[in-house]
Amino acid sequence: MKMHLDCAQCFLKQAARTGRLLGCDESCLWDMVKGCGKILSQINHQLPPPQNAVSLYDMISEKTGLDDPFIDIKKESTKEVLSLYPELKEKIEGSTDPLEAAIRLSACGNVIDYGTSSSFDIKKELDKALEGHFSKWEYPDFVNRLNEASWILYLGDNCGETVFDRLLIERLKRPVKYAVRAGPIINDVTMEDAVDAGIDLVAQIVSTGCRAPGIILDWCSDEFQALFQSAPLVISKGQGNFETLTECGREIFYIFKLKCNVVADFLGLPLGSMFFGRP
Amino acid sequence: MKMHLDCAQCFLKQAARTGRLLGCDESCLWDMVKGCGKILSQINHQLPPPQNAVSLYDMISEKTGLDDPFIDIKKESTKEVLSLYPELKEKIEGSTDPLEAAIRLSACGNVIDYGTSSSFDIKKELDKALEGHFSKWEYPDFVNRLNEASWILYLGDNCGETVFDRLLIERLKRPVKYAVRAGPIINDVTMEDAVDAGIDLVAQIVSTGCRAPGIILDWCSDEFQALFQSAPLVISKGQGNFETLTECGREIFYIFKLKCNVVADFLGLPLGSMFFGRP
Repeated sequence: MKMHLDCAQCFLKQAARTGRLLGCDESCLWDMVKGCGKILSQINHQLPPPQNAVSLYDMISEKTGLDDPFIDIKKESTKEVLSLYPELKEKIEGSTDPLEAAIRLSACGNVIDYGTSSSFDIKKELDKALEGHFSKWEYPDFVNRLNEASWILYLGDNCGETVFDRLLIERLKRPVKYAVRAGPIINDVTMEDAVDAGIDLVAQIVSTGCRAPGIILDWCSDEFQALFQSAPLVISKGQGNFETLTECGREIFYIFKLKCNVVADFLGLPLGSMFFGRP
Repeated sequence: MKMHLDCAQCFLKQAARTGRLLGCDESCLWDMVKGCGKILSQINHQLPPPQNAVSLYDMISEKTGLDDPFIDIKKESTKEVLSLYPELKEKIEGSTDPLEAAIRLSACGNVIDYGTSSSFDIKKELDKALEGHFSKWEYPDFVNRLNEASWILYLGDNCGETVFDRLLIERLKRPVKYAVRAGPIINDVTMEDAVDAGIDLVAQIVSTGCRAPGIILDWCSDEFQALFQSAPLVISKGQGNFETLTECGREIFYIFKLKCNVVADFLGLPLGSMFFGRP
């Protein structure tokens, strides 16, 4: 999925919002705007937004001098959702269909923006999760594919959300390889973050070999590309993975919330709705 | 009033919106985004937004090869509001206080964005105009100043709106000098546009000597600067003039709609409300 004009404005918003989140003063925030302007002046709009976002977050790291600007936010959101783990597990196990409940909660995990929301918001979202509106819901097909699959490749997304992934993986009852970013970018999950969430207890954690906040296959390691092509079933979390995989040619079951108009328009589905299935 | 971070996003929006208005294809629209990115990468955020906007609209002219990209829109909006002139004049003359009615309608003239709205919208706005909400309304003070003033400097803003200015000038009952931009920029009024609206029938049209969509005194001609300093009363239309004159030190009666959050927050007044008076 290539860049939309609105993505350019979103890049500027992300630069300013991230700067504020990191406590930058006004002069530093303007440095970020200027840095983002330079990136936009040279942008290749044929690429997916998460691919261009790598330069954006590199620029933010450079201006702030922080290699992993979101580290505290990542640790905190993992800790926060981990504290809800027993309650979430009980909710899933008490459901008529625990696998379905785990998928719905996992989509809910993508709803929450851990960079900005409070624990109150997370709990509120959880209460709504099992009744949340899915504009795409391919559960029966997924169950068929799952029954045929000897193992699953699960593409991770954000920290905190990882705990919901862990709960879903526990219900898949199959060996799972859980793919993480090769290095820190935004609040995306890395090897260390996945271990913090206890993913190592339920899956084998593998690196994509690439630091982008999505799956840019050309930039991924040969090992990961081989896994991606050979996996009997792929589950992908979040918009970033979706945006970068729309042209990949293989079947993927995506789980995400439609968080922006560009993706909602691309799919022809309502903004804010949740997606589970194949486009 | 200096640039706010949100103005950077607004510049990108203006570039894309203007490109679409001019019928640019996607490749040309991305050229505009890149051009705007370059401007943002070098921006002086200490300057008022309309001062930086000059580079933005110069870039748009360069990319489209059009010296006056808005000429058709300007001609059309002037023609459209001129066709309402008899009805507007009757409305004013039938009011209990025709001067007050002319000021309210003149603010209404600033409400309408001629670049995007249809004639239906203009008529709808007019029906609401005389009951519109002013968050600042210094009418009694204005009448006192008007009674003492031997002549008035009136700072014009957009085409179409000019016809409302003409109706207000007719009620001022004083000699008026009507200031216009020295050359085309956005849909701002130039000498030729003012004549199209019949301003020459009620005032002496003078150039600011500057093409910015605001009054950058340092860039204005010596003649205009002298007029500005010596005028017994100054009336200024629109946000662009306001944004560039906040530090000028002289008393000005502004008439405009608060069209963006940056200006609304600067004044501490509600977005969308109308302003008549001194800040």
